[in-house]
Amino acid sequence: MNNDTICAPATPAGGALGIIRVSGSGAIPAVDALFRAVNGQPLASRAGYSLSYGTLQTDEGETIDDVVVSLFRAPRSYTGEDSIEITCHGSRYIINKVLEELVRCGCRMARAGEFTERAFLNGKMDLSQAEAVADLIASSNRATHQFALSQLRGQFSSELVTLREQLLHLTTLLELELDFSDHEDLEFADRSELLSLAQTIYAHITQLARSFEIGQALKQGIPVAIVGKTNVGKSTLLNRLLRDDRAIVSDIHGTTRDTIEDTIDLRGITFRFIDTAGIRQTSDEVEQMGINRTYSAIDKARIVVWVIDEMPTEVEIMDITSRCEGRTIIPVWNKADIRSVCCSNIASLPVIPISAKTGQGLSALESAILAAADIPEISANDVIVTNLRHFEALTHAQGNLQRVLEGLHSNLSGDLISEDLRLVLSDLSEITGGLITSQETLSNIFSHFCIGK
Amino acid sequence: MNNDTICAPATPAGGALGIIRVSGSGAIPAVDALFRAVNGQPLASRAGYSLSYGTLQTDEGETIDDVVVSLFRAPRSYTGEDSIEITCHGSRYIINKVLEELVRCGCRMARAGEFTERAFLNGKMDLSQAEAVADLIASSNRATHQFALSQLRGQFSSELVTLREQLLHLTTLLELELDFSDHEDLEFADRSELLSLAQTIYAHITQLARSFEIGQALKQGIPVAIVGKTNVGKSTLLNRLLRDDRAIVSDIHGTTRDTIEDTIDLRGITFRFIDTAGIRQTSDEVEQMGINRTYSAIDKARIVVWVIDEMPTEVEIMDITSRCEGRTIIPVWNKADIRSVCCSNIASLPVIPISAKTGQGLSALESAILAAADIPEISANDVIVTNLRHFEALTHAQGNLQRVLEGLHSNLSGDLISEDLRLVLSDLSEITGGLITSQETLSNIFSHFCIGK
Repeated sequence: MNNDTICAPATPAGGALGIIRVSGSGAIPAVDALFRAVNGQPLASRAGYSLSYGTLQTDEGETIDDVVVSLFRAPRSYTGEDSIEITCHGSRYIINKVLEELVRCGCRMARAGEFTERAFLNGKMDLSQAEAVADLIASSNRATHQFALSQLRGQFSSELVTLREQLLHLTTLLELELDFSDHEDLEFADRSELLSLAQTIYAHITQLARSFEIGQALKQGIPVAIVGKTNVGKSTLLNRLLRDDRAIVSDIHGTTRDTIEDTIDLRGITFRFIDTAGIRQTSDEVEQMGINRTYSAIDKARIVVWVIDEMPTEVEIMDITSRCEGRTIIPVWNKADIRSVCCSNIASLPVIPISAKTGQGLSALESAILAAADIPEISANDVIVTNLRHFEALTHAQGNLQRVLEGLHSNLSGDLISEDLRLVLSDLSEITGGLITSQETLSNIFSHFCIGK
Repeated sequence: MNNDTICAPATPAGGALGIIRVSGSGAIPAVDALFRAVNGQPLASRAGYSLSYGTLQTDEGETIDDVVVSLFRAPRSYTGEDSIEITCHGSRYIINKVLEELVRCGCRMARAGEFTERAFLNGKMDLSQAEAVADLIASSNRATHQFALSQLRGQFSSELVTLREQLLHLTTLLELELDFSDHEDLEFADRSELLSLAQTIYAHITQLARSFEIGQALKQGIPVAIVGKTNVGKSTLLNRLLRDDRAIVSDIHGTTRDTIEDTIDLRGITFRFIDTAGIRQTSDEVEQMGINRTYSAIDKARIVVWVIDEMPTEVEIMDITSRCEGRTIIPVWNKADIRSVCCSNIASLPVIPISAKTGQGLSALESAILAAADIPEISANDVIVTNLRHFEALTHAQGNLQRVLEGLHSNLSGDLISEDLRLVLSDLSEITGGLITSQETLSNIFSHFCIGK
């Protein structure tokens, strides 16, 4: 489909090593023009899945680097084409120089995501799997990593295959009904079977569409507000929560360079803390200002950790509970190391005694936060939809299937129902790219990829 | 020497792909504990220089990623030990997870440069070659890349071998002289041969030590000041020079992310422009302030581009030329597109007419800057010393050899001269690490490496 040979760096510069990818029918001759194997064997004479050690040289015989070359022959490669990965030293100069020489030898720089696009076009993966590659690279916690990996490994695709088979079965049954439409007595029996099958499919699609919400929460982190009056220990608590998490991350030293901002991972689920700092201490209207500030944090949160160190007044309790409608409040009694807890419940919510300073009660609080997140235990086999495009297609399918159900209920003629069924099938095909997918859709999907993927 | 197995990421996270390196006698069993090859063959059953495709799984059977594993068996590997490179997707989460599992399987996180340190300790390369690895990764232009590569490929080492052989020959001749010291008539003939040999060695060592200055200039960039009065077009000229360079770099789109600050590469040599902007326009003492500002730029420069758009006064010429002693001045007549050049020479220096606005005369200016840099044409075979440690060792060797020469001149007894010769040999051995090198020296050298190298 594509006759040109593409190349791109697949790693950022600045590490010990760098990888340059080359793919296409001209990959082997292009690299052979630069590569001098220590064993004297050109890549053209080597089998797929082999490694060669040697040097890359420019046209003028100047050495660029000592490299290891991985050879993959079509169709046993990522793209399905002849492909080469050159592992060189990780300097930007070397990586650029190698690319420059590859371009001289007839390759062109790959567009973002073009290797994966080729993998899709060559039938190595469907579109939802291709999209999972980008998600996998971007995944930053256990949950998003698992969703992306499960999608890449085709679990979502195989559920879509099941749905497709069921929809085709439904179509066949409808056609049978049409063929036998003379026999009036057959109709009723068939319709109840049809209806039950359509309801099963509907429930499955709805479940997939609903998983998007969980997927989004896990992808972006579940928003948590820590609210409470000044000097109640909110910052100390936040630092304590963050520090515990950081300690785990920094176990593997040298690997983590980014600052972890106000997010923590609890048993694989990311929580995002909304800044509630900065309550001004103007002597007079402190209370009200504090509460106002608190309100705006609550608006963005799904869980509210309400830190107190004295018994709140009835007005305060009313204020918080009415503001927190639809959110889970976790009342936390801080400074439990020096002040004994006021009460076991506030507004029927159990109070968790902690000491942000000593760390006492922290794991009870973390468990409460996790419980409040109410994320179902997700196993490696569960499919969670994380992609907006997929969610939209599922929502369309839901709408069209709704009309199928209504048609079946109201004893609409089979050929009218068939039309809606075809729409449902086409909605689901869009996810995997099974029907002919427009270049515009493809460009749109792959432009979000990084270079070299 | 080292029985433990080390692991580390060899690429920064955030690219399409990531590489994790494992080295040591436990590398193959450790990776086999995680790796499930698609063809069912454990790595233990595979030959060196082979690639395997499969998945990495945790202890609990949870899939981490689909990976390609490169297997290298001792001694045919970078470190000389059994080594594995795991190519996974480039997410930080995956890379950390794989490292975590490797540590669980008995590996430990490698210190900075530890793979290369092992390569040195296992005799795969000498110390100067090991140091070249770090320089190669850091190299950012053609010149520094060439020096590092030539050093890595052992050209410096082989010159040191030659020097060592000549020094040993000199020692042998001295010992012969001692053996035949009864024969008074032999002494003179030998001494002239000894002296000539010592002078050859001295010249060679001096040439290597001198190359350090060129190496430093090329490594850090040759400092250039663009000076001149306000509104003469200095910034326009600088931007023009930088833009031309940037255009070349951005040919390969998507590969260059760092901002190139005020440095340009002309035919492989980096020039660093010293900021002379910011001359304040206070009505009164403009002239003098401009000149003061100019002076401080000149102090740091090796080349001074003096931009004018009207004939300078005698005082101004005196000011500049006296300040620029030891530096090369290039007078440049700007705005040549609208004002004809005042004169062909100023203070015997040819004036280059340019237009920073239109680009006219730019290549003549670039040639003049290159000529002023006076960098000898360096071929891939030239050895340029770029490492301060090597320069210091060479300087010590020079001093000790100087005493050998003096001893030979003044007919000092052979056994006294021998002692200085031994010092010269030991100085040179320090560069390659041929003598037993202290762990402190090694730690010091390798701590400047990045993780995973």
